Amino acid sequence: MDVIIFYVTCGSEAEAQKIAKALLEERLIACANLYPAIKSLYWWEGKIQEDHEVVLIMKTRKDLAPKVTTRVKELHSYECPCILTFSVKEGYEPFIDWIKKETGG
Amino acid sequence: MDVIIFYVTCGSEAEAQKIAKALLEERLIACANLYPAIKSLYWWEGKIQEDHEVVLIMKTRKDLAPKVTTRVKELHSYECPCILTFSVKEGYEPFIDWIKKETGG
Amino acid sequence: MDVIIFYVTCGSEAEAQKIAKALLEERLIACANLYPAIKSLYWWEGKIQEDHEVVLIMKTRKDLAPKVTTRVKELHSYECPCILTFSVKEGYEPFIDWIKKETGG
Repeated sequence: MDVIIFYVTCGSEAEAQKIAKALLEERLIACANLYPAIKSLYWWEGKIQEDHEVVLIMKTRKDLAPKVTTRVKELHSYECPCILTFSVKEGYEPFIDWIKKETGG
Repeated sequence: MDVIIFYVTCGSEAEAQKIAKALLEERLIACANLYPAIKSLYWWEGKIQEDHEVVLIMKTRKDLAPKVTTRVKELHSYECPCILTFSVKEGYEPFIDWIKKETGG
Repeated sequence: MDVIIFYVTCGSEAEAQKIAKALLEERLIACANLYPAIKSLYWWEGKIQEDHEVVLIMKTRKDLAPKVTTRVKELHSYECPCILTFSVKEGYEPFIDWIKKETGG
């Protein structure tokens, strides 16, 4: 399967929306889902930190992964943003085709 | 690992609930998690559209994927619904066994 | 890719937070995202049950999976908790390195 999703955490809904819109306009993703009100816990400067974040899931073609990663990093406010990809195993074929079409594939 | 999850976006909580209940009753899935208040962005008719959706995650056996995909499409209001599957790599063994048992596997 | 995510459902935000904090303190995970207000549907004692849960996503090294699974089970209030892992395909390299560093890898 040549389709993947991106899992990115953002500092605010505005940031998630900015990244999603830019990548849509650049035809680097077909669609995005924003999950508001996420609570995140992680180590930072020697203590466990708690923050509110927005998770951004983006669907695209596998071969666009390097470009998407570069653009998310450029657009993101974090020094070391969480940018992960996961392989889609299967899917409803017309939706898979739609992802490819929307991203010029 | 012979267990997968489905990632489906729905137009409302009522729609996500209708699909989850139908597939539970038909023993095609073992359980479902509904994520409310998702904001989605995508291209539609030449412009970037924004919508509120509900994400539906469903856990089942890998060999039920074709049947689940067909039923979600039948029950779904969208012409081209987002129906994607992801392979579970590993898991707590009794929970994996429970998924199989609940789906007749 | 030697990084995975855990997908765990919890009975409350307090439970999700307790598990996330313990695993952070034990350096078994690098970070966690809590999704509040999830609605879950599943079979229980012969009927379809509905509950509110919190989904806990945790990022760690692949080789820590058995330890993390054991600790989540120990800390969790459920008899048969949903503990699943998914392989990360790729990611922003400094973030992948950060996950490894934070978990002693």
